[in-house]
Amino acid sequence: MTVAMAQPAEERNASPVTIVIHGGAGALSPGRYSPEEEAAFKAKLAEALDAGYAILEQGGASLDAIEAAIVLMEDSPLFNAGKGAVFTRDGKNELDASVMDGASLNAGAVAGVTKVKNPIRLARAVMKKSEHVMFAREGAEEFATEHGLEIVKPKYFHTDHRWDAYKRALENEKKKKESRQPRDFKYGTVGAVALDANGNLAAGTSTGGMTLKRYGRVGDAPIIGAGTFADNKSCAVSSTGHGEYFIRLTIAREICAQVEYAGKTVDEAADDVINNRLQKLGGDGGVIVLGADGDYAMTFNTDGMFRGVKNAVTKEVAIYGE
Amino acid sequence: MTVAMAQPAEERNASPVTIVIHGGAGALSPGRYSPEEEAAFKAKLAEALDAGYAILEQGGASLDAIEAAIVLMEDSPLFNAGKGAVFTRDGKNELDASVMDGASLNAGAVAGVTKVKNPIRLARAVMKKSEHVMFAREGAEEFATEHGLEIVKPKYFHTDHRWDAYKRALENEKKKKESRQPRDFKYGTVGAVALDANGNLAAGTSTGGMTLKRYGRVGDAPIIGAGTFADNKSCAVSSTGHGEYFIRLTIAREICAQVEYAGKTVDEAADDVINNRLQKLGGDGGVIVLGADGDYAMTFNTDGMFRGVKNAVTKEVAIYGE
Repeated sequence: MTVAMAQPAEERNASPVTIVIHGGAGALSPGRYSPEEEAAFKAKLAEALDAGYAILEQGGASLDAIEAAIVLMEDSPLFNAGKGAVFTRDGKNELDASVMDGASLNAGAVAGVTKVKNPIRLARAVMKKSEHVMFAREGAEEFATEHGLEIVKPKYFHTDHRWDAYKRALENEKKKKESRQPRDFKYGTVGAVALDANGNLAAGTSTGGMTLKRYGRVGDAPIIGAGTFADNKSCAVSSTGHGEYFIRLTIAREICAQVEYAGKTVDEAADDVINNRLQKLGGDGGVIVLGADGDYAMTFNTDGMFRGVKNAVTKEVAIYGE
Repeated sequence: MTVAMAQPAEERNASPVTIVIHGGAGALSPGRYSPEEEAAFKAKLAEALDAGYAILEQGGASLDAIEAAIVLMEDSPLFNAGKGAVFTRDGKNELDASVMDGASLNAGAVAGVTKVKNPIRLARAVMKKSEHVMFAREGAEEFATEHGLEIVKPKYFHTDHRWDAYKRALENEKKKKESRQPRDFKYGTVGAVALDANGNLAAGTSTGGMTLKRYGRVGDAPIIGAGTFADNKSCAVSSTGHGEYFIRLTIAREICAQVEYAGKTVDEAADDVINNRLQKLGGDGGVIVLGADGDYAMTFNTDGMFRGVKNAVTKEVAIYGE
């Protein structure tokens, strides 16, 4: 199934102040979740949208809006980011995040942190308080400690349902039953893009990575240009999916490059990159994209993507392809 | 000083099989080195060019050509990559590298390795033997060991001249004399791009990073789209410079996007990105770029860049701006 969702023509540009969020893409077909589970996902997505949009409505910065939305999803055990992250092969939770400011092209990213409660806040601290863009692993945590980020014990990130999935994945791997891995085995990410009243775009992404990952694997979430990109000249993007393909295609930058240089709408660019280029390489996942004029797209080539959008005229959350 | 060097018009497309290399950009003015030092740099650049070009001339793959050229520069204490890498704040050598295949868009990258003799070979092993693109630190070394890469003791990378520079940098920092840091204080990288007889582009980059770096800082060299990019549809790029700016601008992908979507030549795209966009943000450094038709550019906004090019009609090595 390939789905490209853009807003109806009548609401385009109606009000550029907008926030778009995602909570991961994957094998999400109707019936996958019980009505109660669906309601819980949708309620949390709506809460994240509301938190971010409230900031935008009060004239706040897009960076603050995306941080507020992402922190709520990191703190929720429902999503593979922060609390509720998946487990590495060694049974650990290793978190990645990145953020980018479309006005200044400043950016911050962290990879492989294990005790920072909100990796998106750490990415933003790297952007704001360091001359560097990206820190990895113990070094990133040393920076977090020095700069007063909230530190938690690694077990804070533990949830029973991810631990059970990890155990099943290990068992299946032993039996070489890759095809029987849990359907949310591979990935999951949260992200947000926003446009504020000053016309500034921002993008952020946070993830617990890939179940059973090894070798200090770095996915696309902390890579500027792959998982996250924002430039007021073109658009803001947050990605979710099979990260290796997203890195190779520099998907976030690619979409904004097509908008900037090829004259495409955000919807056309996202559609080409997800449903053509990514598809051809054999990768799957999705993106949320927000243009400098408030145009947005939520595009995925998986069965579904946890997603939502809020602006002056619409508020929508969804899970499955439609 | 801003310099954009492209080949003379008469040799364009004369023979597309080409290799272009760099050994870092920076405060390289005439008089910086003694005639003997200059000769040593130029001899090593020529040796790397010859090694890579010999492979291309025999019909070999561009990936093999860039690996051969980069390995020679990694093994040389003259350049900040492999043996002769600069030191982190903790007095260690931490190495990054990446490689990309323009035919398949496959890529491999490693960050923060301390005992792998040739990080570019490890990046290529990640590309070839792993389903992942990027590994960091201890995990990358575990992968290296399991896959039979040559492991050395960390002291292998030590050179007295980098150690002395590290000690001076620490002293200067204590005295808050940032402006008196050694002129090669900030960065240095080696890289190569090549086009083979089958029309396949490849790019690779390897570095010892930034003197006194902390917090597991990751620069642009291991970031696909920033330090390295290759796509047969557009061009191949290897970057060197102040990595944080190169990440924010996704410089390697940006140049190829301008070629792909804005109809620019590799020279025009490199010129815009280095002498306009990078300059405006306050960053410095350079790139080598090679198009699918054999067009190339060696562009930098620093005083100089160690560089060289070889194809059927030309062989050139240079250090300073001209």
